[in-house]
Amino acid sequence: MPAIPTSHRVRQLRPTAVNSILAEVKQLQAEGRKLVSLMRGEPDFRTPAHIVEAAERALRNGRTGYADNRGELPFREAVAAKLKFYDPATEILITTGATFGIHAALTALLNDGDEVLLPEPVYDAYHSPILLAGGVIRSVPSQIVNGRFTLDVAGLEAACTARCRVMLLNTPWNPTGTVFTREELEAIGEFVLRHNLILLSDEIYESITYEDHVHISPIALSPELRARTVLINSFSKTYAMPGWRAGYCAAPATITQAMFLVLQQSSRGPATFVQDAATEALQGPQDCVAVMRQEYTNRRATVCRELSGMASCRVLAPEGGFFAMLDISALHTPSNEIRRKLMREHGVVVVHGSAYGPSGEGTLRVSFASGGDNLTRGLEKLRAGLES
Amino acid sequence: MPAIPTSHRVRQLRPTAVNSILAEVKQLQAEGRKLVSLMRGEPDFRTPAHIVEAAERALRNGRTGYADNRGELPFREAVAAKLKFYDPATEILITTGATFGIHAALTALLNDGDEVLLPEPVYDAYHSPILLAGGVIRSVPSQIVNGRFTLDVAGLEAACTARCRVMLLNTPWNPTGTVFTREELEAIGEFVLRHNLILLSDEIYESITYEDHVHISPIALSPELRARTVLINSFSKTYAMPGWRAGYCAAPATITQAMFLVLQQSSRGPATFVQDAATEALQGPQDCVAVMRQEYTNRRATVCRELSGMASCRVLAPEGGFFAMLDISALHTPSNEIRRKLMREHGVVVVHGSAYGPSGEGTLRVSFASGGDNLTRGLEKLRAGLES
Repeated sequence: MPAIPTSHRVRQLRPTAVNSILAEVKQLQAEGRKLVSLMRGEPDFRTPAHIVEAAERALRNGRTGYADNRGELPFREAVAAKLKFYDPATEILITTGATFGIHAALTALLNDGDEVLLPEPVYDAYHSPILLAGGVIRSVPSQIVNGRFTLDVAGLEAACTARCRVMLLNTPWNPTGTVFTREELEAIGEFVLRHNLILLSDEIYESITYEDHVHISPIALSPELRARTVLINSFSKTYAMPGWRAGYCAAPATITQAMFLVLQQSSRGPATFVQDAATEALQGPQDCVAVMRQEYTNRRATVCRELSGMASCRVLAPEGGFFAMLDISALHTPSNEIRRKLMREHGVVVVHGSAYGPSGEGTLRVSFASGGDNLTRGLEKLRAGLES
Repeated sequence: MPAIPTSHRVRQLRPTAVNSILAEVKQLQAEGRKLVSLMRGEPDFRTPAHIVEAAERALRNGRTGYADNRGELPFREAVAAKLKFYDPATEILITTGATFGIHAALTALLNDGDEVLLPEPVYDAYHSPILLAGGVIRSVPSQIVNGRFTLDVAGLEAACTARCRVMLLNTPWNPTGTVFTREELEAIGEFVLRHNLILLSDEIYESITYEDHVHISPIALSPELRARTVLINSFSKTYAMPGWRAGYCAAPATITQAMFLVLQQSSRGPATFVQDAATEALQGPQDCVAVMRQEYTNRRATVCRELSGMASCRVLAPEGGFFAMLDISALHTPSNEIRRKLMREHGVVVVHGSAYGPSGEGTLRVSFASGGDNLTRGLEKLRAGLES
């Protein structure tokens, strides 16, 4: 029986760092080890009751037929009302989460060999969709300046070639916790326009920001930048709906139409009654979002407090999102080695910063998507490990 | 502002015939015309209550976190139990419908320029996923023999080149209504093995067969053929769940793994509570399937009766699925022209056979996915139109 070769494109794809670490975790657990995980990005909140009830109501009302492939019109209208200045008929696309939005945008825009600017350290799940779409990754390094990861335009200019078509931006920025300021976004926007790039703006952590940091979307900066931007968002983090697989994109009609064609040939959109529930999430009471933000604020304070005053580690207090980066450069040891020791010798799981790119070396990413006892015990073990 | 070019790959994609006709329909409706549609493939049944209740129960139990990307294990186990001889850990993948299964399989298998054998007349939504994956379509004509569309191995051999990697088969076959017999499938299976092809077997109409016609899956024919087959299925037709976006694939581990990587970078699987409901569909009572099959049987009889005895039209009674092909070759007029006249002058919407390929010329496709008054009035108009 001859072997079955898979496509070249698929053979380039790799599991993410989290998936690789999960495999290590499972092996240790199989050996009977107890581990506390401060690794994953899944909110531990239940989906707010009024959103769940909207889904149940839709199910009881027989909302189980095919949905409009672009997304049900009331849903697109709710998204357009939130974003302003987008036409629900031609500029909004409902997707099965932000993952699909990124995939569809890249497939709609890239030809083989086209380059994508990707600031790092970066959520490494961005890599494979670029490769799958035939693209080439151009990493853009960043620096820790005054306790936060910072991206400068000189670095973008240095990485940009004539083959660059797209820049991928994530604000609030996973894993770094940076929330780009208006000034930073304006400089990035000018760079994008100067090189006729398309900006893919992944804004899934938009609602989770701290102190006086506020999320600003590039679409709000100028009509020119809005015309070169694909906004990507999802309900997973803001409304604690990770398992629902619901998100949306907003982009100029040409790009939206191309993304729609990709969607029609592959996943189609979320289930019809899921779309009704997501519409309720946008249009219903928003206190749930404030409650979750307050809880993340408390957890962030816990992380900063419990890991303070150590010689080996400095917490880079995040401006947004639910990850804290720990600067462990004083240890002069590869972050992956420290991660392994923390897991094997101290029973706590975090992600090494180098998994997210060379600029992440010398850091660890600690998730506080889960709180409570898990967070308390995890931070104790982490502190003990880093002090030893 | 420079124009935004979309990718070459996406620019090849075209809306399906149904989508093009829908645009014509909407225009006529905007002019105030009343039309009866016998066009679409959406079951008019509501999802059975016990499946809806399983989703509500899962929602109430907080089953809203991330699902396993391969599909929840109990769901994969239920699929494996149905299919037999598949390993739920490595050979089953849960997808957002059959559309995604086809997309993932093609993307996992095809390199640019690889060819796909596609018997026609064929569901034209197969075209774009092949192009999107970089593939080239090799159409295989079929013939009406004894009142049914028939595919012969000589035709397959004539179409097959050294670049052929995949054959796409749909049984029961949309739009033709043919259910391949064991002998036919054995001949196709030998052809597939002789040329080291991969068979993509789309079996979404498996439960809807008539008289003594029974659905046989190629995976049941031999271990050798099973090792070269990707089985693709969905819950849309069998359990009246089109809007739920749930389906599954079964394939050797190498292919399943490659399809899984495609899925991880794009849609991920269905919502977690949707997976629970689909598991209940497989494991719960199956009377609902029998009830729907009986109703389709009655509708099929209605179509055959109401369109009998005309000189201009012969009904090719379907062996499976919920479409009937009408042989209108006696009219010696392009089927698209007849379709337009039926729509504009008689107010009934069907699909012209030539939309599905040259072998479909001289036929019309009539859907009985909707029954009741819609079907009765549609058939009246159709008869009047074809007699005029």
